[in-house]
Amino acid sequence: MDINVIGIATTKFGELWDKSLRSLAKEAALEALIDAGLEKKKIEAMYVGNMLSGMFSGQQQLGPLISEEIGLPVFSTRIEGACASGGLALHEAVRVLESGRFETVMVLGVEKMTDRNQDFVAMGLMSAGSDAERQAGATFPALYALLAKSHMDHYQTTSEMLASVAVKNHFHATFNQKAQFPFPITIEQVLKSTLIADPLRLLDCSPITDGAAAIILTTNKFLIDRDSKRNKVKVVACEAATDTIGLAQRTSLIELKATQIAGREAFKRAGLLPGDVDVAELHDCFSIAEILALEDLGFYKKGEAGPKVLSGETKIGSKGLITNTSGGLKACGHPVGATGVKQVVEVVLQMRGEAGKKQVDKAKVGLCQNVGGSGATAVVTILKN
Amino acid sequence: MDINVIGIATTKFGELWDKSLRSLAKEAALEALIDAGLEKKKIEAMYVGNMLSGMFSGQQQLGPLISEEIGLPVFSTRIEGACASGGLALHEAVRVLESGRFETVMVLGVEKMTDRNQDFVAMGLMSAGSDAERQAGATFPALYALLAKSHMDHYQTTSEMLASVAVKNHFHATFNQKAQFPFPITIEQVLKSTLIADPLRLLDCSPITDGAAAIILTTNKFLIDRDSKRNKVKVVACEAATDTIGLAQRTSLIELKATQIAGREAFKRAGLLPGDVDVAELHDCFSIAEILALEDLGFYKKGEAGPKVLSGETKIGSKGLITNTSGGLKACGHPVGATGVKQVVEVVLQMRGEAGKKQVDKAKVGLCQNVGGSGATAVVTILKN
Repeated sequence: MDINVIGIATTKFGELWDKSLRSLAKEAALEALIDAGLEKKKIEAMYVGNMLSGMFSGQQQLGPLISEEIGLPVFSTRIEGACASGGLALHEAVRVLESGRFETVMVLGVEKMTDRNQDFVAMGLMSAGSDAERQAGATFPALYALLAKSHMDHYQTTSEMLASVAVKNHFHATFNQKAQFPFPITIEQVLKSTLIADPLRLLDCSPITDGAAAIILTTNKFLIDRDSKRNKVKVVACEAATDTIGLAQRTSLIELKATQIAGREAFKRAGLLPGDVDVAELHDCFSIAEILALEDLGFYKKGEAGPKVLSGETKIGSKGLITNTSGGLKACGHPVGATGVKQVVEVVLQMRGEAGKKQVDKAKVGLCQNVGGSGATAVVTILKN
Repeated sequence: MDINVIGIATTKFGELWDKSLRSLAKEAALEALIDAGLEKKKIEAMYVGNMLSGMFSGQQQLGPLISEEIGLPVFSTRIEGACASGGLALHEAVRVLESGRFETVMVLGVEKMTDRNQDFVAMGLMSAGSDAERQAGATFPALYALLAKSHMDHYQTTSEMLASVAVKNHFHATFNQKAQFPFPITIEQVLKSTLIADPLRLLDCSPITDGAAAIILTTNKFLIDRDSKRNKVKVVACEAATDTIGLAQRTSLIELKATQIAGREAFKRAGLLPGDVDVAELHDCFSIAEILALEDLGFYKKGEAGPKVLSGETKIGSKGLITNTSGGLKACGHPVGATGVKQVVEVVLQMRGEAGKKQVDKAKVGLCQNVGGSGATAVVTILKN
């Protein structure tokens, strides 16, 4: 059974004071329908990825809320797994398509984060961490700083290498009109920015963001074959894995085991190898996270990703794998429930050849990696022309 | 493909000051494994139903949290659809089993509600309602009071009929050691209890509750056939439907359309009729809700359920359909994310013939109906020996 992505959309990402959660969701959903050239009534079910609307907007049961907003009274449910909520919603949609129950479903990710003050947002995000981490006063920059320190200790990874991830992703974002920060930065700027949690500085960290993204998946042969001009994009694997919620319960801090497991399983099911991937959207919530992902997914050996990114690999224009052409979480923005869906949107744009100035030449195989918390959840999706 | 329930458990329901969300989840999960006689490592995935842990406990990403707690590092995600979160988690588990991806999965529902003050709980629960309803100051008793008033206007349903639902469910709870309120009440007591939202009185309303429930589902023929002494219980349908989140957007207040759609589809897929059902757990969050469910699922014609319940039908000892042998949400308690899973536990006990003093004679077909909010989500599950 082939599962194809036939519709994609994202809203602008950023501080969208004038847009509500409802209106962002509606905008993404309707644009995905237009992109697919599909009538609303063809959608048979909807999976909504969202982390924080209960805590930030006092609104839960987003499935029916968004169904109501877009006038699509079909089965709809919310899936939550912190910053992996969007990827998990996709995972559920792929499984339900495989079950044969539905042929055409929408996956929508949405998050509205900038209406609350920073302390409340930091507290809300820490609901993805463990009790002990919260009680110790840790925030996510602190947890990822521990991962970064371990990586530096083991592999002589440097602050310049971390910074180069952010610099590359900001460079990519300059080509993305939807990005929150579509401007370039330099390694010097990163290294001089405020220290947040040693060794992570402000410009190593992804921002808080409002935004929504939607994709339409179908197994319906007529809908897949309808448009002969556009490159078809198939989901060849979508795998998820779980690790402990707290860092203290893990045996190693130089890797994210959930990414490794989900990645291995995804490559196996797709019948592909890391070397086959042309473009990837990786979960760079902090600069160290992209380095971990590049290694944990098998694109580089442990300890080699930092020097390679610093040398210019993975940047548009270089040969081999190009990562985070959207600008990644760092520069495109990170509306947490939307991120896992936006990653698919970007990879599909690349594989259709519709990525404009950020187009990667001959992008035939794409990968998305979406992480919840400090690695308790990971979803890896592989797409192919 | 047969999907069987091979393990069930619930914790005690009530004000469990000495138990955390983690410990309740663990207790239910481990007891379900013991009930199934299954090693932990046979579980391939876990679906967690929970509504309020983000708002009440500052804890999200419950999938990995509970995986970690019970030492079961498999794919695990949280599903949320307000008070239907448990039913929706079951719905996702059934779909993933149908996809063939996994053979044996756990569905766990958990909610910890009594640690917070009442105003905060009322506010939290209203996150299942619409913006306009919240802004108008409505709470769920007020919304269900509107449904009750409409039903009374259309069908001459009386306060005595509403009260008789609560009286019956309290009577059933006297046989249930896990129930929050295992004592009988009288119609007079209901009619004299505090008026909450006219016509609903205190004893028409389900309580807030702590508790967890877990079930283990499998398609593995060896695991299904292993125990020849115990009646096998099969999930023959699990259907979900969506309505508008707000009452104001609906054309009728004398029915819950999502229940009707999910019910119709479930009976169709099961190849059964309402008359075939021996026992049902219905979502009696308020007394009117059980009357609506009895009618919307086709057990009675519109307007006939009230007089029939008052006359003693649906009570243990009467002929025909018996409802809410657990005591229902009213008397067994309503830990919202756990309720949809607990319903299945009760029906399975009945169908195994293990329901003790509340056993219904020859219970061969059972049904569970789980509702989110004021009917925006409904899940209907049919089980068969």
